[in-house]
Amino acid sequence: MRGLVMTAGVRRLVDLALEEDIGSGDITTDALVASEARARAVIVAKEPLVVAGLDLARYVFQRLDPDLRFEPTLSDGDAAAKGMDVVVLNGRQAALLTAERTALNFLQRLSGIATQARAYSALLGKSATRLVDTRKTTPGWRVLEKYAVRVGGAANHRMGLFDGVLIKDNHIAASGGITAAVTRIRATVSHLTKIEVEAATLDQVREALAVGVEVIMLDNMDLPAIEAATALIAGRALVEVSGGVTAQNLKALAAAGVDLISVGALTHSARAVDLSMNIGERVKF
Amino acid sequence: MRGLVMTAGVRRLVDLALEEDIGSGDITTDALVASEARARAVIVAKEPLVVAGLDLARYVFQRLDPDLRFEPTLSDGDAAAKGMDVVVLNGRQAALLTAERTALNFLQRLSGIATQARAYSALLGKSATRLVDTRKTTPGWRVLEKYAVRVGGAANHRMGLFDGVLIKDNHIAASGGITAAVTRIRATVSHLTKIEVEAATLDQVREALAVGVEVIMLDNMDLPAIEAATALIAGRALVEVSGGVTAQNLKALAAAGVDLISVGALTHSARAVDLSMNIGERVKF
Amino acid sequence: MRGLVMTAGVRRLVDLALEEDIGSGDITTDALVASEARARAVIVAKEPLVVAGLDLARYVFQRLDPDLRFEPTLSDGDAAAKGMDVVVLNGRQAALLTAERTALNFLQRLSGIATQARAYSALLGKSATRLVDTRKTTPGWRVLEKYAVRVGGAANHRMGLFDGVLIKDNHIAASGGITAAVTRIRATVSHLTKIEVEAATLDQVREALAVGVEVIMLDNMDLPAIEAATALIAGRALVEVSGGVTAQNLKALAAAGVDLISVGALTHSARAVDLSMNIGERVKF
Amino acid sequence: MRGLVMTAGVRRLVDLALEEDIGSGDITTDALVASEARARAVIVAKEPLVVAGLDLARYVFQRLDPDLRFEPTLSDGDAAAKGMDVVVLNGRQAALLTAERTALNFLQRLSGIATQARAYSALLGKSATRLVDTRKTTPGWRVLEKYAVRVGGAANHRMGLFDGVLIKDNHIAASGGITAAVTRIRATVSHLTKIEVEAATLDQVREALAVGVEVIMLDNMDLPAIEAATALIAGRALVEVSGGVTAQNLKALAAAGVDLISVGALTHSARAVDLSMNIGERVKF
Amino acid sequence: MRGLVMTAGVRRLVDLALEEDIGSGDITTDALVASEARARAVIVAKEPLVVAGLDLARYVFQRLDPDLRFEPTLSDGDAAAKGMDVVVLNGRQAALLTAERTALNFLQRLSGIATQARAYSALLGKSATRLVDTRKTTPGWRVLEKYAVRVGGAANHRMGLFDGVLIKDNHIAASGGITAAVTRIRATVSHLTKIEVEAATLDQVREALAVGVEVIMLDNMDLPAIEAATALIAGRALVEVSGGVTAQNLKALAAAGVDLISVGALTHSARAVDLSMNIGERVKF
Amino acid sequence: MRGLVMTAGVRRLVDLALEEDIGSGDITTDALVASEARARAVIVAKEPLVVAGLDLARYVFQRLDPDLRFEPTLSDGDAAAKGMDVVVLNGRQAALLTAERTALNFLQRLSGIATQARAYSALLGKSATRLVDTRKTTPGWRVLEKYAVRVGGAANHRMGLFDGVLIKDNHIAASGGITAAVTRIRATVSHLTKIEVEAATLDQVREALAVGVEVIMLDNMDLPAIEAATALIAGRALVEVSGGVTAQNLKALAAAGVDLISVGALTHSARAVDLSMNIGERVKF
Repeated sequence: MRGLVMTAGVRRLVDLALEEDIGSGDITTDALVASEARARAVIVAKEPLVVAGLDLARYVFQRLDPDLRFEPTLSDGDAAAKGMDVVVLNGRQAALLTAERTALNFLQRLSGIATQARAYSALLGKSATRLVDTRKTTPGWRVLEKYAVRVGGAANHRMGLFDGVLIKDNHIAASGGITAAVTRIRATVSHLTKIEVEAATLDQVREALAVGVEVIMLDNMDLPAIEAATALIAGRALVEVSGGVTAQNLKALAAAGVDLISVGALTHSARAVDLSMNIGERVKF
Repeated sequence: MRGLVMTAGVRRLVDLALEEDIGSGDITTDALVASEARARAVIVAKEPLVVAGLDLARYVFQRLDPDLRFEPTLSDGDAAAKGMDVVVLNGRQAALLTAERTALNFLQRLSGIATQARAYSALLGKSATRLVDTRKTTPGWRVLEKYAVRVGGAANHRMGLFDGVLIKDNHIAASGGITAAVTRIRATVSHLTKIEVEAATLDQVREALAVGVEVIMLDNMDLPAIEAATALIAGRALVEVSGGVTAQNLKALAAAGVDLISVGALTHSARAVDLSMNIGERVKF
Repeated sequence: MRGLVMTAGVRRLVDLALEEDIGSGDITTDALVASEARARAVIVAKEPLVVAGLDLARYVFQRLDPDLRFEPTLSDGDAAAKGMDVVVLNGRQAALLTAERTALNFLQRLSGIATQARAYSALLGKSATRLVDTRKTTPGWRVLEKYAVRVGGAANHRMGLFDGVLIKDNHIAASGGITAAVTRIRATVSHLTKIEVEAATLDQVREALAVGVEVIMLDNMDLPAIEAATALIAGRALVEVSGGVTAQNLKALAAAGVDLISVGALTHSARAVDLSMNIGERVKF
Repeated sequence: MRGLVMTAGVRRLVDLALEEDIGSGDITTDALVASEARARAVIVAKEPLVVAGLDLARYVFQRLDPDLRFEPTLSDGDAAAKGMDVVVLNGRQAALLTAERTALNFLQRLSGIATQARAYSALLGKSATRLVDTRKTTPGWRVLEKYAVRVGGAANHRMGLFDGVLIKDNHIAASGGITAAVTRIRATVSHLTKIEVEAATLDQVREALAVGVEVIMLDNMDLPAIEAATALIAGRALVEVSGGVTAQNLKALAAAGVDLISVGALTHSARAVDLSMNIGERVKF
Repeated sequence: MRGLVMTAGVRRLVDLALEEDIGSGDITTDALVASEARARAVIVAKEPLVVAGLDLARYVFQRLDPDLRFEPTLSDGDAAAKGMDVVVLNGRQAALLTAERTALNFLQRLSGIATQARAYSALLGKSATRLVDTRKTTPGWRVLEKYAVRVGGAANHRMGLFDGVLIKDNHIAASGGITAAVTRIRATVSHLTKIEVEAATLDQVREALAVGVEVIMLDNMDLPAIEAATALIAGRALVEVSGGVTAQNLKALAAAGVDLISVGALTHSARAVDLSMNIGERVKF
Repeated sequence: MRGLVMTAGVRRLVDLALEEDIGSGDITTDALVASEARARAVIVAKEPLVVAGLDLARYVFQRLDPDLRFEPTLSDGDAAAKGMDVVVLNGRQAALLTAERTALNFLQRLSGIATQARAYSALLGKSATRLVDTRKTTPGWRVLEKYAVRVGGAANHRMGLFDGVLIKDNHIAASGGITAAVTRIRATVSHLTKIEVEAATLDQVREALAVGVEVIMLDNMDLPAIEAATALIAGRALVEVSGGVTAQNLKALAAAGVDLISVGALTHSARAVDLSMNIGERVKF
């Protein structure tokens, strides 16, 4: 039910993107296209993909032409076959030409993330294990990329440093151990926030359990260690696996009974999918 | 000689990135790390890579601790072997922890682009053909990604819509043909800007030559057509090849004698390379 | 350990505050004070109070004179007796005069909140019940006022709509009941976030328990109903009391065994405490 | 006739307020409310109050739903009885829920100031003495709070440091006396701006009169001193009383014949009044 | 065909301009004009002029009243006789009064530039020489003033430091000579950008030609030197004359066969032309 | 004593100016100048002028090189002879080259205004009449240009719509006459603000006097009418003359005994004076 949240940060990113491309003016379009000329355009999928970011693309075009009509034939999360029309646009020709690349750059990247997340999710089948993303997102794009991950069928870890406690090795070292860290943070953290601790050894897992953390992240453990840790935890905390996850071992990790598998590649290494815009094709006014 | 230009847009992107991650506060670090605590950290290459973005990473850390010392052992453009220290940092422990992910996210993406650009460039060997990027960059990141492309040894096409004329098929259609478009634009464009026209057929190449454009982009032609077009042009205009370029056919395209080969994947589909930060290792105060 | 977080939002608020007061210039000071003149000033408590916001006051003065020395004699959270010097300042006289009111306005309001929170907290004595604030903060001041609440010894509820789930009556109505709402939200919310539900009746408490929520807010119940609900919940969820809390009934509510008592007045109706600045007293250069 | 001025600063404050509350998203509403769902809501007075800030509340809601209908049943300055509907809203349910708290926080604070100002004003009855506010406003809220003061029937002192000369004790000390200060400032200040000087003694009052200032502020004098000073001034300058004003002595001060009485508490210590929003009550589409 | 580009920078300048004039409110209009009052106004030319900036003036008024109707009787570039109505406006009376001065200030300056550019252009008659502006524009106004220059019939040099290479004496000195500078820059600059070099002597002209620059700027040469340089260049590069150009010698310079004459005075010393706004004249509702 | 006020608006204008010139980068300097290279430069007066804006020029350079040394040999308000060095700079060569034009553009315009204001002021000799500016300033430059006017020896009218009441013909018409307008505004305006009314006839002067305004602006009256009005007013209000003022009639107007003469041309039509920067001259490191 949750659509794309056009936060203030997202709006600022769009403005930044339009400014970096348009700068002091689109000298080609300004010279060649009459400001009153109108056109029809279609955005077409050039390869099979899962669509994500339609509301964002609309927003980009409407920054340049508030009256532009942007009519998607699909919704975010729908699969598009190669050659399928994804959006039909009608508006000022100059706005269509000037905004085209920025809008497509957004759409191609977000749809690329959704497409890849769908593929990873499919590997898990009906498993109860949740596939989650990380904070390894493109700076400036956090809310957008986490949205695309959801569109593709995976789930989100925390949004940022502000909405979840994750005590990592460096925090543990700075605090004098897991017990000290958890005790101290429990005194200040909101009653709505669970505490997650990173554990690299079974001893750390034991210490985290003893101090009652709600989530334990098994950091870069191999499969046997993960199985041992999961057995040890035995449902007393949620178990997250992080590090070294690949499309190949995803299914085996899930089979080990972990609750969450986090994968940085969901956002940091997705390939842009191919979408293009054709102006003036099949125009009938 | 040209280093990373920290334009106003780049500074805004960094602020956006820190805000989206920190939001109302880093609740884990705020609770666990004393504000006066100081630490030493190193950023390490976890795989072979070409470094890009060091000045940017410094800027990110110094937004949170203006007095932090950021001492790279390499320069942008240097290759780092797996396991090599890339930067040594000394500063407030809380700033190191809070800025870590944002700084690494920038560095991993830019180094990923530089690493890939270096690999593509190597394919061209000593060819006079220039490998160039496109406007298919991550929105908000234009200046940064084009910088990483240069660091990797490839060159930049225009920065945006404002600093070069590129007449595409949609512009031609809107203007009533190549001749009309070029004639009109020549009357208004600055005397410092060359005119490039996209051509999909030999007839279009002929028309562009006749009207005296300085650069012709051969759009999505196959190799025989490219060879024919290059022979026809015969040095009267620069020749750019665009579309369908892969690592496989790059060398053959260059051998055809074209001046420029543009590759969108240089920016839109680079994989982030792996860098991590270790705090407190080998600290001796 | 957590100090005042000078988030991007706080910095923007300070700039807004200085702009609204200075506008096109401080016409009195500009005409009367030489730009090179320096002075010493002290900020004095004019009534007993708990100090909060010293880092913020420093930031305000240093926006106008980056080299100004701001030396507090107390720390945030310390009690000041009437007449006590709280800060000694040395810097440009014009900056002291121009920034005085804005800095004091911040300090008086935050110290007022801390002072009142200290008084409320004292009423709870050694009770395990946590006194928490609400989202009824001064718009633009969320992070600041929640900080002052902590300084005064109370705790924070969620920071905003982004870092905690609180299902209120309107959400329940929109979702078709507590069970439906909780089921739906559990499918999407981060594994680090607990779910709190507002309940106005014992039946709603039962439904919330049945669907396994982690926190139940008893909304505007009277004391007997609160006691009954707490007995019913019996530790299976955290219990928060909200609405109708006063200094008078606080202790009785805590005695009922609830985990959290939330009080909007902690932020929305605190009185500013009296602090003033004297320039040039006891100056000896 | 003067309504609420939605200055650029006010618009920035609203954006700051929405950002601090919504951040990366309203996770409860996003999960539970369909984006196309519409609802009706009413804002109700929960205690007797004077309404102030309706245009601002409309602006807050319309930032999230530009098509939302916001129909007040009262105007700013009207008294609302307990239980009275103040505004009827129709719009997107998600926007109503997400904006509710921010809009109410603005409305409760401004109405609280107007309500208190009305009470203070009533104490003055038909006196010719003007009750005025100060610069002791909530940072970021200057224009808003001064508006609420006017709505409540009191008047404004200067808006900031830019639109009126007020020579305080520190300025006098920095300038070498009242005569020197006034002489110097008269040479530079706009011919549209009157000069006000703070006086703590009758000698200072005499010096200010001699140099021809237009307004004299009697600072923290007791009633007999105020009466003596007013007699001495005898209409040759406006007389303002400042410091130590309470609801108790207000009437006596006015009776002393002063022109203006300034009261910081009008803005810095007003209590928020109670308003709440009910969604979905009596909805009939 | 190219109209006024309302870049992000231009929109920011307009906001800055409205803020600096309105600040905390238009105290005269706020007190005297009912917020619902509507009026008709006309903007009238008080002297003969060439109009420029109509879209900008509309934007200024519509920032204060989005529904205001702004109906020009002329277009940018049209000549207005003294006394001629240029625009008819209908909208909120308060918006008309508050925005009047800012809108006129923009219009008077841009029309002043266009009027002067038209006069300079007329001096060149049908010459093939292009009259161009410089970067000596009013800071913050670059895009606007360069637009007004085009409206007046002259042409633009580069927009800024980002869209054209111009190697000046200081660059030459820093690089060790023209040959070194051009060689180095050719290796990095986009293939769409021509290289221009400043030459103060015939020897420098020869060196520039030898290294193949596309444009040579003759800097502060007298007419005989310009003729000699032009003869030497003989069409192998474009020739620009800069420095010491006046209305008096413009024609002779063009007759010398140079391609471009740049004139800083086109923007830095244009006089504002006289336009005024009458409200309520001939109003018939 | 009042120096240049670097308000938030001024800082925004500088950022706007640097962005519009630098955009995505100074492609000439970036390619040719080593980032570590340092240089010395001087700013030289190329014609006789009154200097204004030195602090602003320093600010511009230091935005690009915070450590740059900017050492003026004169102060704002000093006259510079042709050829005189005005500032010596030492800093990064790239920063000097990139900031040069923007800094000079600011300095040339402000010094041009100061130079012209000095000339106008000289015409008044020792007259008690004050020469004042208007709101006909370059949008975005209000504070700067009014500062330059003061530097040149003239005085400022109000800064904007917020700090002075000026009832113009349109306001009078909207209010139903001078008496109604003044009565209404007196009820709301701050006690620190005088009221000025525009009068076009002697009857209007009489009405304004009768209602007790503090300042009367004689709008576009000829000299005999001005003399008659001044005689009629006879010191009961300040008299301002506006409209039709030229260097020729200035002295006669002053002789008529008016208090203020306002001249729009002081800001809207000043010519930029000639200043240039030489880099590397006489450098001795």
